[in-house]
Amino acid sequence: MKVDVIGLNKPKIVILGAGYGGIMTAVRLEKELKMDEAEVVLVNKHNYHYQSTWLHENAAGTLHHDKTRIPINDCINKSKTKFVQDTVVEVKPDEKRVILENGELSYDYLVVGLGFESETFGIKGLKEHAFSISNINTARMIREHIDYQFATYNNEPEKKDERLTLVVGGAGFTGIEFVGELANRVPQLCAEYDIPREKVRIYCVEAAPTALPGFDPELVEYAMNLLESKGVEFKIGTMIKECTPEGIVVEKDEKVEEIKAATVVWAAGVRGSGIVEESGFETMRGRVKVRKDMRDPNRDDVFIVGDCALIINEEINRPYPPTAQIAIQQAQTVARNLASLIRGEEALETFTPDLKGTVASLGEGEAIGVIMGDKKLFGKTASMMKKVIDNRYLYLLGGVPMVLKKGKLKMF
Amino acid sequence: MKVDVIGLNKPKIVILGAGYGGIMTAVRLEKELKMDEAEVVLVNKHNYHYQSTWLHENAAGTLHHDKTRIPINDCINKSKTKFVQDTVVEVKPDEKRVILENGELSYDYLVVGLGFESETFGIKGLKEHAFSISNINTARMIREHIDYQFATYNNEPEKKDERLTLVVGGAGFTGIEFVGELANRVPQLCAEYDIPREKVRIYCVEAAPTALPGFDPELVEYAMNLLESKGVEFKIGTMIKECTPEGIVVEKDEKVEEIKAATVVWAAGVRGSGIVEESGFETMRGRVKVRKDMRDPNRDDVFIVGDCALIINEEINRPYPPTAQIAIQQAQTVARNLASLIRGEEALETFTPDLKGTVASLGEGEAIGVIMGDKKLFGKTASMMKKVIDNRYLYLLGGVPMVLKKGKLKMF
Repeated sequence: MKVDVIGLNKPKIVILGAGYGGIMTAVRLEKELKMDEAEVVLVNKHNYHYQSTWLHENAAGTLHHDKTRIPINDCINKSKTKFVQDTVVEVKPDEKRVILENGELSYDYLVVGLGFESETFGIKGLKEHAFSISNINTARMIREHIDYQFATYNNEPEKKDERLTLVVGGAGFTGIEFVGELANRVPQLCAEYDIPREKVRIYCVEAAPTALPGFDPELVEYAMNLLESKGVEFKIGTMIKECTPEGIVVEKDEKVEEIKAATVVWAAGVRGSGIVEESGFETMRGRVKVRKDMRDPNRDDVFIVGDCALIINEEINRPYPPTAQIAIQQAQTVARNLASLIRGEEALETFTPDLKGTVASLGEGEAIGVIMGDKKLFGKTASMMKKVIDNRYLYLLGGVPMVLKKGKLKMF
Repeated sequence: MKVDVIGLNKPKIVILGAGYGGIMTAVRLEKELKMDEAEVVLVNKHNYHYQSTWLHENAAGTLHHDKTRIPINDCINKSKTKFVQDTVVEVKPDEKRVILENGELSYDYLVVGLGFESETFGIKGLKEHAFSISNINTARMIREHIDYQFATYNNEPEKKDERLTLVVGGAGFTGIEFVGELANRVPQLCAEYDIPREKVRIYCVEAAPTALPGFDPELVEYAMNLLESKGVEFKIGTMIKECTPEGIVVEKDEKVEEIKAATVVWAAGVRGSGIVEESGFETMRGRVKVRKDMRDPNRDDVFIVGDCALIINEEINRPYPPTAQIAIQQAQTVARNLASLIRGEEALETFTPDLKGTVASLGEGEAIGVIMGDKKLFGKTASMMKKVIDNRYLYLLGGVPMVLKKGKLKMF
């Protein structure tokens, strides 16, 4: 491979995955490293990076996926970072090699940022019959599937109302954000396909005793009231027992009920990439419990970043949630630590999350959130803050031009 | 029914169907009749009229169906024409009654303009597995179905190329116009779903020994060359023997071949509405061979207009093709003859088609056609003429405001 020849005398850093963690590591390295200090190779399945926190909008059909994805060549400086478009099959850490579908790469330092997969917790039929919002492909497939059900409805001699029933599994962060978009999309679909709005049902099913577990109850109530006013029906404290080609079977208080639905989207669980586990790293649900400097506990030359990394919040002795915010912060630590290692500096920086807040959108112009520890935000203010957060990321990634190109600029 | 009470002392004209023939009859009657000369009731399944000659664009996804349909209330004057939204079940001409799904109507004079249906000539599986471009519902379903195949392609572990294979049955007027739009749409779909253009196949299968039978050979060659340059593959002189869930089976020179295709659209035959036949009218493929004054041969009080009417071109002893142009002209004769009957005038006008020409579009900006008897048109000139024809119809229907609202105004 050509990159091996060029880089014979320089340490070689290979970054796997161009999600939030991977791409930000590459972009930060371009700033941290001096010319010719190292060879950096970024590997990704597609030639684009995408904002996985926006996928629920692509899936609902309220935002086009081309707004969510960004060509990798628009993010990196090609004279500093080499991009290889390929799919990672396996990491062989003992041999310092990565097996790709169409080749392989050797490395001196590895950054694993292979992202998340849907976690179905063994619920029967979920893998086969439910969609999950995992990437650009699955998101636009969901949009297309929903459109298809609406388009089909008036073309059948016997109208099947289950075509117009949408079930979202999970009322956590992603589930709530997704039903928020769906509630805004449904009236558009009804207009497009001449369907009475009252025929459409949107269910949000959550096993926990509340929607948005972990959120302030006042915010949860605001969110649920708003979404219910847009026609969302919540089934809280309700387990999905099974997903079938016809819909789902749920159970609450030992009462079993079937909901017929042509569209079931599972938004209740994620885990780290299966490749990490299969490559022999020690993981919990695909996530490696990293050292304080973001390295694998057993490998001095391997960093883990983003959804594949597990960090314990020692105040509450529970893992931090795998968010974009944390992945981006981790990438900065990883880049600085890589520069230190290459320069032979022993002391590596410790990663400390700087939690600036959390905002969940509830459809265009509506959101809830907490910032600065305990300040609650509602409605338009929260929605604006969400956009500020999104634009801030784009600024970190590609400066003002990236914000102008991909940012959410309609603030009010 | 309220309309019966109001109209006790006035002759009652009922128009069935708001296609080209029906809606133009209603609009012309508003001009021909004096106040209170008759009560006019227009019955249609939907609350909109649509331009069936544009449906192939809706089906390909190159034009939104809301451009193709026009609210009936925007076409008629409600103080002159009463609109009943209902579906015709049966005409009982002996009792001068029309049975609707939700009621019935009596009439003194009836205008039957119930339009066309797809004619599959008994080809096995075609009714079950092929789409036809029949109305707004089927057109947007075809668009949606094609989108769905492209969206699904990259979501399957084993990619199925037949998802990207489109078969159009028939290279007549509709078939050619539809493949023209498809050829323009496919590159957009490839960009939307990250699919290499060369994976997509567009077949146009025609049993006759030429595409566009009846057209000048020079125009046919122009059309085929143009469409082939956009990736359309013609199979001329080839019979569709069967349509299956997997695609079609064709035969040429006693050689049988299977083409796997997720999308098969049958565009090779139409017939008059089945309701006319089932109501006891004498028909040939659902079309009534009308008298010279556009009346049913056996009923002095029933006019037939549009695709349900059969008129012989005596010069060549073959029926005129059922076109929008002829339907619109028929409507004018029907309206004037209705006015005469109501006034007790015996002499009715004879309908004579005034064939101004035919233009077939080959996708945006391209067309072929013949006007003024023998003047051939190609390319941009023909395309512009097509738009002039379309806009002329809108002008007849609703004057300048209708042209501005629904017209194809991007002329060059």
